[in-house]
This record gives sequence, C-alpha cells and structure tokens, in this order.
Amino acid sequence: MSINGTMLIGQQAVSGQQAEIHAVNPSTGERLEPTYMGGGKAEVEQACALAEAAFDTYRETSLEERATFLETIAAEIEAIGDDLIERAMAETGLPRARLEGERGRTCGQLRLFANVVRAGEWLDLRIDPALPERAPMPRADLRQRHIALGPVAVFGASNFPLAFSVAGGDTASALAAGCPVVVKGHSAHPGTSELVGRAVQAAVSQCGLPEGTFSLLFGSGREIGQALVADPRIQAVGFTGSRSGGTALVATAQARPQPIPVYAEMSSINPVFLLPEALAARADTIAEGFAASLNMGAGQFCTNPGLVIARQGPELDAFVAAAGEAVQGSAAQTMLTPGIHDAYAQGVGRLAGHAKVKEVARGQVGETAHPCQAGLFVTQAEAFLNDPALQEEVFGSTALVIACQDAQEMQRVAAELEGQLTITLQMDDGDLDAARQLLPTLERKAGRILANGWPTGVEVCHAMVHGGPYPATSDSRTTSVGSAAIFRFLRPVCYQALPAGLLPEALQDANPLGVSRLVDGQREG
Amino acid sequence: MSINGTMLIGQQAVSGQQAEIHAVNPSTGERLEPTYMGGGKAEVEQACALAEAAFDTYRETSLEERATFLETIAAEIEAIGDDLIERAMAETGLPRARLEGERGRTCGQLRLFANVVRAGEWLDLRIDPALPERAPMPRADLRQRHIALGPVAVFGASNFPLAFSVAGGDTASALAAGCPVVVKGHSAHPGTSELVGRAVQAAVSQCGLPEGTFSLLFGSGREIGQALVADPRIQAVGFTGSRSGGTALVATAQARPQPIPVYAEMSSINPVFLLPEALAARADTIAEGFAASLNMGAGQFCTNPGLVIARQGPELDAFVAAAGEAVQGSAAQTMLTPGIHDAYAQGVGRLAGHAKVKEVARGQVGETAHPCQAGLFVTQAEAFLNDPALQEEVFGSTALVIACQDAQEMQRVAAELEGQLTITLQMDDGDLDAARQLLPTLERKAGRILANGWPTGVEVCHAMVHGGPYPATSDSRTTSVGSAAIFRFLRPVCYQALPAGLLPEALQDANPLGVSRLVDGQREG
Repeated sequence: MSINGTMLIGQQAVSGQQAEIHAVNPSTGERLEPTYMGGGKAEVEQACALAEAAFDTYRETSLEERATFLETIAAEIEAIGDDLIERAMAETGLPRARLEGERGRTCGQLRLFANVVRAGEWLDLRIDPALPERAPMPRADLRQRHIALGPVAVFGASNFPLAFSVAGGDTASALAAGCPVVVKGHSAHPGTSELVGRAVQAAVSQCGLPEGTFSLLFGSGREIGQALVADPRIQAVGFTGSRSGGTALVATAQARPQPIPVYAEMSSINPVFLLPEALAARADTIAEGFAASLNMGAGQFCTNPGLVIARQGPELDAFVAAAGEAVQGSAAQTMLTPGIHDAYAQGVGRLAGHAKVKEVARGQVGETAHPCQAGLFVTQAEAFLNDPALQEEVFGSTALVIACQDAQEMQRVAAELEGQLTITLQMDDGDLDAARQLLPTLERKAGRILANGWPTGVEVCHAMVHGGPYPATSDSRTTSVGSAAIFRFLRPVCYQALPAGLLPEALQDANPLGVSRLVDGQREG
Repeated sequence: MSINGTMLIGQQAVSGQQAEIHAVNPSTGERLEPTYMGGGKAEVEQACALAEAAFDTYRETSLEERATFLETIAAEIEAIGDDLIERAMAETGLPRARLEGERGRTCGQLRLFANVVRAGEWLDLRIDPALPERAPMPRADLRQRHIALGPVAVFGASNFPLAFSVAGGDTASALAAGCPVVVKGHSAHPGTSELVGRAVQAAVSQCGLPEGTFSLLFGSGREIGQALVADPRIQAVGFTGSRSGGTALVATAQARPQPIPVYAEMSSINPVFLLPEALAARADTIAEGFAASLNMGAGQFCTNPGLVIARQGPELDAFVAAAGEAVQGSAAQTMLTPGIHDAYAQGVGRLAGHAKVKEVARGQVGETAHPCQAGLFVTQAEAFLNDPALQEEVFGSTALVIACQDAQEMQRVAAELEGQLTITLQMDDGDLDAARQLLPTLERKAGRILANGWPTGVEVCHAMVHGGPYPATSDSRTTSVGSAAIFRFLRPVCYQALPAGLLPEALQDANPLGVSRLVDGQREG
C-alpha cells in the first residue's frame, strides 16, 4: 500500500485546495513527503453527505456483518506490514517496539469491538409485555433497543498515531455502534493516517458497505474541525487532545441549532498518593516504578503521573532523592512534534520559575531535534492549594511532588484536585485505613483508581474507565477506552404496540439474535 | 400534615426573604393561602452545603436502605391523604380523578425505583480478572461499578404537580442513584410541593439519613434556579418545562468552570401519521381517539398530539370532518396557570392568523377563569415545509393537520421534523410497507414510536423512553420516565488492583450483593 497525499472521501482519494500540510520527522526536523493539501468546507460537505447517505443502511447491518467489518479493518491494517511502522516512526519519533505494540493494541481493540457487537449487550434490550387485563388501564406492549446516534466526527490524537487515531478507539466504538465515521486526521502524522485510512476504505469495499461509512479528511488550523462539528449531519464527536481544543469543540457543538454530545478527553495530571507505610517500607522501589512510568514515551500519555502527594519527612525525602536520581539519569526521548516540544519547555519553565517550587532534578538534555528533558520538582501543599496554576498539565516527562504536613493536608489536596483520568495509591496493608479515608474523595475526582501500579498502560477491556470528571473529559459518564466506549454513540428508542412485521429483529418475540434481554425488569438469556 | 408557607432545607422549615409567591386557583382566579416567601442565593447555599455534606454517606447506603427510603417516601405521600388531592386540585384546576391517578403513579414510580435499586443492574458491574501470566504484559485486576454523580437539582414541572414535581420521576431516579436532591418547586403549586416535601423530609428522618439528602426551595423568577444550577456542588440537573427555560439552564450549566449535564425535557408536538389503509378503513374511529388524546388534561401533556400528517383526499377530509366535530363539541377545561392560558391563546392566535393555515374547528369557550378552548387547524405540506414556525409547540388542546400530496411528501415532512418525544402511526396491515419506509426516519426523530395508540399516557416501566432528540430533550441518550432514568445520575469508576479490603462491596469476589456482573465480558448471575 502506498500513500499519495490525499484525503479519502468514501471510496475516492481527494486532494484539497487549502493550506499544505507537511509531516516532520521530529527526531531530525526533516520534512517528509508527500505534501498533503488540506481540505475545507467543501470536503466536509462531501464526507458528511456520504455519511448521512450511508447511515440508515450501515446502522441496520446485522451484528455479524458489522463484526466482520471491524475484523476486516484489523486484518487490512496488519496487511500494510512494516510500511506502517516505518512511516509512523518517521512521523512521530516513537520507537519501533512501541509502535508495534500500539498496532497490536489497535487491531486487538477492533476485534474486541467485533465481539462486543456480536454479544449485543450494548443493545440494552428491554421488553415489558402488554397487560391487556390490567385495571384501571391496560398496558401496551413496550420494547426498547438502542440505535446509533448518527454520523460521528473523530479527531485523531497526536500521541497515539494508531490507537487513538484514524482507526483508534473512538472510530472502532462508533463503527461498532452503527455510526458512520468522518475522521479529521492529525496533521502530525498524515502518512500514517492515510495508510490506516486506506485500510478502512478497503474494508468498507470488501464488506460491501455504503462508501460513506468512512471518510478521512486533513486540514491545518481549526477551521475544518469546527466545520465538521458544526455540520448538521454530524451527531457526536470523539476527541483526544488539549483542553483548549476540546473546549472549543464543545462550544461549537453547543452553539449548533441542534446541540450534540462531544466526548473530549482533555487533560489530567494523574495524581499518585504515597501512603505512609508504603513510603516507609519501599521508597526506592516506588521511586523506580514512578520514574519508569514518568519517562515512558517521553511522558506523552494522557495518564502520565504528573503529581505525587505524600506526607513530608525523611521517608518522602528518600523518595524524592531516589526519584530525582532516576530522573537525572533518564535519557531524553524525542517528542512527537515541535509544537509539543515547545509547549513542554514552556510548562517546565513555569514550574522552574515558580517562587514556591523547587527543582529536584532534570534529565539528560538529548541530542535529537526535539528531545524531552525530564524534570522533577517539589513544593509544599500550602503553595499548591493557593495556586490553581500548579494543577496545569505539563505534557511530557515532568512531575511535581507535593509535600503535606499531615494526613489532613493530604485530604485537603485531594479535595482540591480537578477531575482526573486516574488516581494512584501506593499503599501497604497498614495504609488501609488511610486509603479508606481518601477513597470517597478520590472516587469523585477520577475515572480509575489504582493501587500499587502505575497509571500508564490503559488496558482495553470491559471494566476499563478511561474518562473522568471535567477537565479530564467533557463527559464523566463515559469512557473512551474499553468496550463500554460504545455507549457514547447510542440512544434508546421505545416501540409501543408495533406490529410484529415492523419490529426490529432484536426485539421480536423469538429473540432471533439470541441477545440477553430485560423482560419485565428480569434478565433473560 | 399542614402547610406553613416555608421552604424545607434539610430538616428545617425556612422562610425566604425574596419576593412573595402566591398560588392561584386557576378555575376561579382566587389567591390561595399561605403566602410563600421566595428564597435566594442564601438558601441555595444552605441547601447545597447540606447536600454536599450528605453525599458520601447517602451514596453508600446499602441497596436495601435506599430502597426502603424510596418506599417510605411513597408511604408518607399516601399518608397525607385527601389534603394533598384537595390542595393540588385548588392549585392546578385538575380534576380529582386525574390527581388521584397521578398520586398513584408517583408512589408507584417510587416503588419501582426501590425495586430497581434492589436489583442493582444500574451498578453495571464489570470484572476483568488479573492475568498475571499474560505475555508480553500481564493484566491487572480491573473492576467497574457506577457511582452517583453528586447532588442533583430538580425543577418541579407545572403540568404534573405530583409525578414530575417534588417527588416525581427526576427526584425518584436521582435518589435511587444515590444523589441528594435539591428541588426548586414550581411556583404554581407551592402548597402541593410543601406537602410532598414534608413527606420526603419525614422519610429522610425516619430512615436515619443525613438531612441534606433532600431540600425544597421556592423562588419566583429565574434567579434562584440559575443560582442552583451554577452552584459548584450541584452535579446534574433535571428539568421539565419550556424550551426557553431548558435552554437557559443548559447555558448556565455549560458556562460553569466545571460544566454539568442538564436533562431538560422541553418541547414536542408528537406527530401522528395516518397511513392510507388505516385512514380509509376507520377515519371516524381514529378521529375519536385523536380528539380524546388531544383534549386529555386540556392538552397539557408533553406527549399531546399536536400534529397530524396524512395524504390529502376524501379519506383525510372525512377524518378532518369527524375530528373537527369532536373538537367543536369538546368542553373547555381549566388550564394550569394564567401564564399557560395566555401562552396558549397566543399560540392558537399564531395559527389562526397564519395565511396558509385554515381553521377547522374550535371547541367550547368555557366559563372558568382560564379555560382551554380546543382548536383544530389544517395546512398543506408545502406550507409546513416552508415555515419552521409551524413546528412550534402550542401547549394545550390544539393540533395542526398537514395534508400531503403523496407518500413522498409525507416522507419529506417526516425528514423535516424536529426531535420529538413520540411519533404515532395509525396503520393497518396494508400499511406495513409504508410504515417500513418511514420507520428509519421516525427512529431518528423520536424516543418512542407507537402504533394504533395515542401518545398521551406514558407508562412507567423498564422499556419506556420518555426522551428524544433535541429540542424534545437536551440529551437524546436518556429517558426521564421509567427505570432507565436512573442512568442519568451515574458515572463509571474503575478500580485497578485494589486490595480486597478497599474494594466496594458490590465488586468483592464473593458478590455479596448478588447482583448480575459482566466477568470478562460474559454475564454471570
């Protein structure tokens, strides 16, 4: 498979008329071919018209057809072979092993959703049979299923060129729900996006689906993205990126004549609480695990541990010393884009220049064009509580340690946290009571709470919540990773007294799909 | 139980300092005692502080405790006896039988949610056990449950003084989810609200719950409601009312530093499609059923059938003649408030004065202070398609018939409809193909689709969807009636590798709650 520098609108390859987009190899700063000509309103119009035309057919594909389509996408992505890995390496500076792993995750995710589609739990089928003899009023036959919301706009993320991009979690879950998808590819990895887009396009064709089931657009600046979210045919939006970007999309979606949901995963500093017994018993081991998590992928994960909270004292000093040593020794990895590198330098600069923040250590400087020099800083809880700016995410391998006077102050820090994707507890058996005291607050602050692990590494499974209260995401009721992500793109419809010939298959008496249903509130099957 | 003209903040009865509120008997125009002194920011502050203080305790009550609480509220409402019915009759002009039925519905709803709480399906429990041997990376133990969002603001609706008011569906589902509730009672029925509020307050005390679990505020104008929605402790909002009112609350919720979901049920004209065979076979019977549904409760239902769509011809003429006759003979019922009566008169005036709309019939004029004179109007599909204003809801017993040239034009009308709570098909066996053609469009337009019935009368059950695309509601993914209404007030939390001693009871290995769980994606129990 080769790349031509085009957008993909349905089964067509289309060249835009707007500003040029050039991928840059962040390790070398060199420009990568081909040039991508960005699209604008005309291409949004075409892609959305096709998506709308595809919707009623695509959403009523059988469970098996839709599952097979998702599996075909996975197979087509794998069939690209090493070209995909090499292009992604060139466009992102990420190492081969990471990208091979991410490809596995992406294809595994598509196959998970294939199984989710087949199992059909997402249909949330409910039947309340007619009660014609009920007094004083009979009850009509009432049946409920979930249907797809409509065409969905997905924004590729810079930091996962495969798993949160063209055929990533948002696309996989929207397609699984029965929604056509229009992707706005990230300008940092257009070649990777085109390769994956062509895999999806091929799968659409192979499976005999309407061409508008999938399109891929490119465009620099916010105009094309805003036009996409404003298009009346788009019914939901998936986004992973900055708080300002996500907030802008939410504002556009709310300003529409018909507002629509935006699932924006935006910012999180993923606090880690070091509880006293654990800290006393194993400060060094914790510091080692922490530094590894902090440095993974140059810290460019939504779940990077950017905040450490503990009681001050010699145990915390030991942790800070060990973590500082690890940070100091850490090699500088190339960051994803020049823009991310600049923003990182500014964020570290804000910490370094803060009157109440002390630098503990900086990592190695690095020799590539856009290296991430790791950083560890420390401050007092009082300073943290008095300055909301210290909660701002620094995207990259930098963390801030908050030294608290006592357990009460740790509790106050917890209570003042903004919404997070994750909160981690490092704890031993003797910390159980302390953890129990914190837990109710932590549950209100984060979508995932973990003990004695590290927040990086988000398992794609059924129980995962990759979401959390604002500003971690724009909608705390949802997850963007794991099988429950499908629920973001569905809405319930109730059918009252419909003749059997008009009822959707899933709701027919004989249960031809064999999916579990709630009958009079009791689960059957 | 007596009423004192006070708000209820936790276990206190509190008198406000703002503008006076007087209930008015809409049948007579007479002012009802006592005077209610409206509250303001001070009372919002008190109620929200108590709700916040109650939250962590209330949300972790056992399923049985919470279910018993809901049942106790129902018993306390019933214990008020006839005083409640008489006060509601005086404040709303609604007849005794309707209010007795609505009380039954309200208490039945509370008991339904008690059973929903006990069954625990709403917890959506998911467990993905650890896979320590998995290569290349082990999987940690991951468990998910849903927790309550936080304190919820509920706005009482004017048109259901019991079932969508102080202890109505929003309050019942929020309490079931584990959310404390602060109700802003509707100024049209403060006495009814106080009576029910005292019943809830008594149940809180009897069940030994924190007093902040429930508060009831009053206030005229929008200030107190806006203050409530803007309060940082409020985490979700339930509202049933006008489009302008709902839209204003959504804007306030979105402008918060932390935006929150607003579940506003706003406006719907509940189109009825008369398909050809049914129309030819039984125009008179359909007209009779239609007029009964249109006139029920002076048309003051969210699901009142305000639009009829059919192919022009002698069959439609027969329907219009029969329906017109029924409308002409229909007695004028008292409307809920002088304001609703005025808005109805204006809405009917807009139709009557429209160049392309023809008056078919008006009902009897009525002799009470605020009567609803029914109305039936007719227009051509072309006029309807060219004037979006003809889709504006006229809240009351008035409907507009749209005469279409052919099936294609009916389809175009369907496609141009705004979002609706319901769409009804009047159809016979011979109409199946026509209905199948329409169904995909109707599914995208409404939360509930019904055949050969009438949309008024919303069953409280598991399969009900009382919701729909904007502007029917602000969030088409939800329902405000039926057991699924609980999902509006929940969010998922994932627990990764938590020690057994820290895990919520619902997620412990032994499944002590005995609730159905998804284990590795497979349903167990």
